[in-house]
Amino acid sequence: MSRVKKIIKRMKVKNELVRQIMGEVLGTFVLLLFGCAAAAQVKTSRETKGQFLSVNMAFSVGVMSAMYLSRAVSGAHLNPAVSLSFCVLGDLAWIKLLPYSLAQILGAYLASGLVYLIYHDAIMEFSGGVLTVFGPNETASIFATYPTDVVSMQTSFLDQVVGTAMLMLCILPLNDKRNAPAPEALLPPIVATVVLGISMSMSANCGAAINPARDLGPRLFTFTAGWGIEVFTCYDYFFWIPLVAPMVGGVLGSIIYLVFIQWHLPELEDESESEEFNEQTKVTEHNNKKDDCLCYITVTVCTFVVYINRFTNKEF
Amino acid sequence: MSRVKKIIKRMKVKNELVRQIMGEVLGTFVLLLFGCAAAAQVKTSRETKGQFLSVNMAFSVGVMSAMYLSRAVSGAHLNPAVSLSFCVLGDLAWIKLLPYSLAQILGAYLASGLVYLIYHDAIMEFSGGVLTVFGPNETASIFATYPTDVVSMQTSFLDQVVGTAMLMLCILPLNDKRNAPAPEALLPPIVATVVLGISMSMSANCGAAINPARDLGPRLFTFTAGWGIEVFTCYDYFFWIPLVAPMVGGVLGSIIYLVFIQWHLPELEDESESEEFNEQTKVTEHNNKKDDCLCYITVTVCTFVVYINRFTNKEF
Amino acid sequence: MSRVKKIIKRMKVKNELVRQIMGEVLGTFVLLLFGCAAAAQVKTSRETKGQFLSVNMAFSVGVMSAMYLSRAVSGAHLNPAVSLSFCVLGDLAWIKLLPYSLAQILGAYLASGLVYLIYHDAIMEFSGGVLTVFGPNETASIFATYPTDVVSMQTSFLDQVVGTAMLMLCILPLNDKRNAPAPEALLPPIVATVVLGISMSMSANCGAAINPARDLGPRLFTFTAGWGIEVFTCYDYFFWIPLVAPMVGGVLGSIIYLVFIQWHLPELEDESESEEFNEQTKVTEHNNKKDDCLCYITVTVCTFVVYINRFTNKEF
Amino acid sequence: MSRVKKIIKRMKVKNELVRQIMGEVLGTFVLLLFGCAAAAQVKTSRETKGQFLSVNMAFSVGVMSAMYLSRAVSGAHLNPAVSLSFCVLGDLAWIKLLPYSLAQILGAYLASGLVYLIYHDAIMEFSGGVLTVFGPNETASIFATYPTDVVSMQTSFLDQVVGTAMLMLCILPLNDKRNAPAPEALLPPIVATVVLGISMSMSANCGAAINPARDLGPRLFTFTAGWGIEVFTCYDYFFWIPLVAPMVGGVLGSIIYLVFIQWHLPELEDESESEEFNEQTKVTEHNNKKDDCLCYITVTVCTFVVYINRFTNKEF
Repeated sequence: MSRVKKIIKRMKVKNELVRQIMGEVLGTFVLLLFGCAAAAQVKTSRETKGQFLSVNMAFSVGVMSAMYLSRAVSGAHLNPAVSLSFCVLGDLAWIKLLPYSLAQILGAYLASGLVYLIYHDAIMEFSGGVLTVFGPNETASIFATYPTDVVSMQTSFLDQVVGTAMLMLCILPLNDKRNAPAPEALLPPIVATVVLGISMSMSANCGAAINPARDLGPRLFTFTAGWGIEVFTCYDYFFWIPLVAPMVGGVLGSIIYLVFIQWHLPELEDESESEEFNEQTKVTEHNNKKDDCLCYITVTVCTFVVYINRFTNKEF
Repeated sequence: MSRVKKIIKRMKVKNELVRQIMGEVLGTFVLLLFGCAAAAQVKTSRETKGQFLSVNMAFSVGVMSAMYLSRAVSGAHLNPAVSLSFCVLGDLAWIKLLPYSLAQILGAYLASGLVYLIYHDAIMEFSGGVLTVFGPNETASIFATYPTDVVSMQTSFLDQVVGTAMLMLCILPLNDKRNAPAPEALLPPIVATVVLGISMSMSANCGAAINPARDLGPRLFTFTAGWGIEVFTCYDYFFWIPLVAPMVGGVLGSIIYLVFIQWHLPELEDESESEEFNEQTKVTEHNNKKDDCLCYITVTVCTFVVYINRFTNKEF
Repeated sequence: MSRVKKIIKRMKVKNELVRQIMGEVLGTFVLLLFGCAAAAQVKTSRETKGQFLSVNMAFSVGVMSAMYLSRAVSGAHLNPAVSLSFCVLGDLAWIKLLPYSLAQILGAYLASGLVYLIYHDAIMEFSGGVLTVFGPNETASIFATYPTDVVSMQTSFLDQVVGTAMLMLCILPLNDKRNAPAPEALLPPIVATVVLGISMSMSANCGAAINPARDLGPRLFTFTAGWGIEVFTCYDYFFWIPLVAPMVGGVLGSIIYLVFIQWHLPELEDESESEEFNEQTKVTEHNNKKDDCLCYITVTVCTFVVYINRFTNKEF
Repeated sequence: MSRVKKIIKRMKVKNELVRQIMGEVLGTFVLLLFGCAAAAQVKTSRETKGQFLSVNMAFSVGVMSAMYLSRAVSGAHLNPAVSLSFCVLGDLAWIKLLPYSLAQILGAYLASGLVYLIYHDAIMEFSGGVLTVFGPNETASIFATYPTDVVSMQTSFLDQVVGTAMLMLCILPLNDKRNAPAPEALLPPIVATVVLGISMSMSANCGAAINPARDLGPRLFTFTAGWGIEVFTCYDYFFWIPLVAPMVGGVLGSIIYLVFIQWHLPELEDESESEEFNEQTKVTEHNNKKDDCLCYITVTVCTFVVYINRFTNKEF
């Protein structure tokens, strides 16, 4: 008995990064399994067993479930754009960005594979056995995101930037003790609701990936599973947009939150005290890292605020 | 490093009103971005990527997100009718009403512009390039609200008054410590649910703006962006109704809450104590302002309650 | 200033029952305004601005809002069947049952009138000006509930009994400290979810009134507003079923909860202590009332439990 | 009076297992009553009074209500696959597995019967009086789950395994104090949301029973109520899949949670302390049982983790 316990203890992964990678893989796996399975259900049932809205809702439930699952382990980023934003904000070491992102892509890839297994029969029946990216029987959109015919490259890029910026802008205050935060134990459903809102309002153009892993993982899967190179070449090599634009958008949204809201919030008492009494402590060091990153970013946006300040602030 | 920190500190906006304006601009921006983008998605996808309900839900998510974003900064009114009601209730200085309202209209205007950018291609494809207020390819209703053909001016006005009165009547108890309030950290989703309810039940006549900024901001945008003066002149100069009626309705709803519920609730112990021991203190002064506003309002409605009281209250 | 305050204080309704009646009138008014307005919106827009589901959801939001509004004043029963159940459970004095019920009917009547005003133009356009109970252009079902053609009287009765029994069975544990209750400040949204569930699953036969006031108030309104006596005579005098069956169902559901769950829960420590030390105190007296009511009810159902007990309980 | 109280006390079921069985019967009854009634409403109204989504939502509300009802009594498993998983995890005695499962099947059977009574008229009208499993007027799918025509046996089995594994994987962290759990009093709505997600994303193939009792109870009812033996023989004796696959999936999901997340979480301080000071106490004994069960399971999965560990953990 106690032997079993010891075995379990020995198997405890002692390397923190490995634990975090396992958390991100499993979290993103859950997120994509809910989302892509719902897309497969709606598509292959020809909207008799769900509609566009239920795909949005399933992704939202996936966000909630994945966050409860891996929040204590890895922070439940589930999204390279979120990881990058947290790097910029100083909440994640830059060295971990690549492992996190790869783990998220892996989780998404594995989930796509499992969805394909579960819905193999239905996909074959729906597509007539021809796995294709175009036409009324296309099934590629079950997995990765594709733009509509009318939308231009620039608009797609903007769309993804704005969507991801909204994501960061709306979830950062939820956990900011200097703001009026949500209850910590209820963050997952509230973040999920924000994601639901984004996918209900900004998915018409190109599917609201707002997450490079959510898009690249399934796209790689469809590439390897028989849809062919078309999943990358179609729509004029569209695939790079959900990879790059969310990274830009996530950082942009974080900066907007910092510049317009966070900097102007009253400091927590604990925070200001700790500054007074132990200026050289850990807290400060941690903040220093934050400052480093923000240093160059700041210069570009501060002119705006200074400009406003000059005209209104008499004590300046 | 510490230099960056000092720079940030210097950029902190020290004028409270400017901070509040920034909060209201950004909050209303988020609210309208969710809402109008969802309207654009549903309209331009011809209801294949959402339905009427998903527009309502996206506005609701927008309310939640905007409230978490700017509640600690500006109170997250997001609505001139709400700001006016809080002025009447004594919770907002009258001097701030105009800046708040303008900030809200500005936020709504900016969000409309961004939605137009994101959905530019889709709107052009949907409308055939002709931006118009009437007909099957009209796109003006993505932004501002318009009445149906059958509804008369008086009914529209009543509809907006009732909708906004319901809004105030249903959100005031949520934060009233003398009532049985909702958890403070969960106010945003609950207020969002109330807004969802109103837009599911009172939007058939004229779109449930219940918010002058939500309506005027986008309408101004469409005016400047190519829909022309028709956005103001159409439906017999309908545009003034979502501006004026919500102001009336918001105050009316607040008064109904005060007269029928709030006055009769037991006083908090702290409150009554403070009255006993320091009658001339701040608390009283704050209440005095409240009383000033309510003085004239009260006279008009009190007869009703006195009438009931006379017949039932033996201790009177 | 302070004069105003005194005026307000004088207007405070000192009779508790009048306060409670005002709470119930306003609460039921809010509930019905959301619900009937949503029904009017869906019906008159021919399901373009909502579907069956959005009526259910609007009623659910109405329940939530009405509960936050009047819970601290009157307990927010909003339903004579709930009031009757609380009388049986000893939580409401029998003398208050009739005033509560009449207040609820009045609130429902007033809300129906306001909905009719708001949607007057749309109802006239939809019905061609003929207010009728039957046919494709009927509008009576916006207000009161009517059965389908195929459902028999007995089935309708059973349907209403089961629906209301489910309501009581599902909401009683939410507030029972001996069970695993929901957070008190979040009772309104959770009760609203239960009502949503009932209206999604048990409204096909006869509209899931599960509330005599919700049905009689609007029916009286339609009677007086031009639909005529047919609202009472149609479907073989169906109208008495949503009046009587919910009363039976509410009590039945409460008893099921007591007999199968509540009696077998561990007693709270406070409760058992108070019994030991002051057996003749208020608490006991309060419980005595409860016992009185349950006395005769108990006899009819206890045989069942005794029967089970005999075979399984060795300590008996 | 006090006599009544004593009668109630005597009727208190003293045998814990009987109390738990009563809780499970009533809980599963409530779950199935919501779910099957919604299925009947949607089916017999030909989707005019609800859609596929509302059946999913009603099951979800059923989960929430049933959990609040019987959580304090029996733990509200409501599902033999959940009970089996808790046996494997050491949270339920193996001896109770069969009584729990039978109770759940009984509750499901009773609920099906009541749904049949309520919707008898509507089912007769819809089916033309012929109770059948196939064809456009089939009504068997109101009660039990059936696969689509295109799905193979293996896919159905995998589908049910994955669905139930997701269920356990997503609900175990919600209540795990070493993870970042949800508020205990809000577990029911969050678990309900997970179930909603699963039924929106994994119900296209064979109806997402993910619960042997939810499937067998109604199937037995339809067998006895006139649908005949076809409910078991149809689709090549499909009925065993929702019985066996969820049992496999539930255990699999629990193991995945343990191996990938739970083992690597930091231990609670209380836990580690209690181990230090009283190694031979109850806590340890309880854990021992857990270890016993996991002993053999562990061996099969540990190689994977050891393999990862060898390459990354320098302290190993």
